[in-house]
Amino acid sequence: MKVSMHALSADLFANILHNLDWILGKGAAHAAQKKFDPAVLLGARLAPDMLPLTRQVQIACDIAKNSIARLAGQEPPRFEDNESNFEQLHARIARTRDFLQGVPAAALEGSETRDIKVPAGERTLEFKGLDFLERWAIPNVFFHVTTAYNILRHNGVELGKRDFIGGGREL
Amino acid sequence: MKVSMHALSADLFANILHNLDWILGKGAAHAAQKKFDPAVLLGARLAPDMLPLTRQVQIACDIAKNSIARLAGQEPPRFEDNESNFEQLHARIARTRDFLQGVPAAALEGSETRDIKVPAGERTLEFKGLDFLERWAIPNVFFHVTTAYNILRHNGVELGKRDFIGGGREL
Repeated sequence: MKVSMHALSADLFANILHNLDWILGKGAAHAAQKKFDPAVLLGARLAPDMLPLTRQVQIACDIAKNSIARLAGQEPPRFEDNESNFEQLHARIARTRDFLQGVPAAALEGSETRDIKVPAGERTLEFKGLDFLERWAIPNVFFHVTTAYNILRHNGVELGKRDFIGGGREL
Repeated sequence: MKVSMHALSADLFANILHNLDWILGKGAAHAAQKKFDPAVLLGARLAPDMLPLTRQVQIACDIAKNSIARLAGQEPPRFEDNESNFEQLHARIARTRDFLQGVPAAALEGSETRDIKVPAGERTLEFKGLDFLERWAIPNVFFHVTTAYNILRHNGVELGKRDFIGGGREL
């Protein structure tokens, strides 16, 4: 017996985006409690030439959405990058999770051998589906979700790994 | 056709630990070039109550190793946490990757339904193998590898997402 591509792609991403949503909620609550403009957190970065929190969330959502669409052989829906507050980022995550949860496991059947092309600057990367998931999609989504966590944590939001792993749910 | 647990656990972790090794190499090179004590980077943190770089690397290795051992129904080998320089961390990663690559795919056959217990403080978490991989092991390993990256990046090491995703290899 083996496992479906769906479990370790669409399910995996929907789960960690739930946790990202929870983490962002703690960021917004922290700003409210300390009475500072939440936009300070949304614009925070770990280095001057790294992307700020808002972009980390947008990109985590996009890579999850686009990767699952590619694995399913679909054209990914396009979301505008126009969020400017926490509520809008929550909505972006919700839309992304709705998309992920709307892709049936059957649509990903056989996707492990599908030819996947990913535009990357002037190049186009080419993968088989399983390699794409393992070497591109999973590392990329977790990179941006963890970086969002680290930006908030670095800025004093009270978070622990339990928030990242459990997203406010019992494990 | 479905995918093996092995591909999205032992392979996945061996791959991202390769990239962690590459990223650490850039950290050590940066310290050498700027002529500062590499131990400064090893002790760096993103917040006073977060763990420093050395611990992020040790924990990433341990979660990868212990998770694969649990999925395979083996007792995980114990590694001492006694690394105090970059060379020793490279060796820790190499030992961990050797362990991961030494677990044959057959040892993880059927592990998606195996009962897994994880000590977590005073509690013991219980999962089926697939849930354990999806909700615990993968998020945990990527959390610590990304945090190691972010610590180095925050401290001026010239790294980009390409280093995290590709680890110095062509994609």
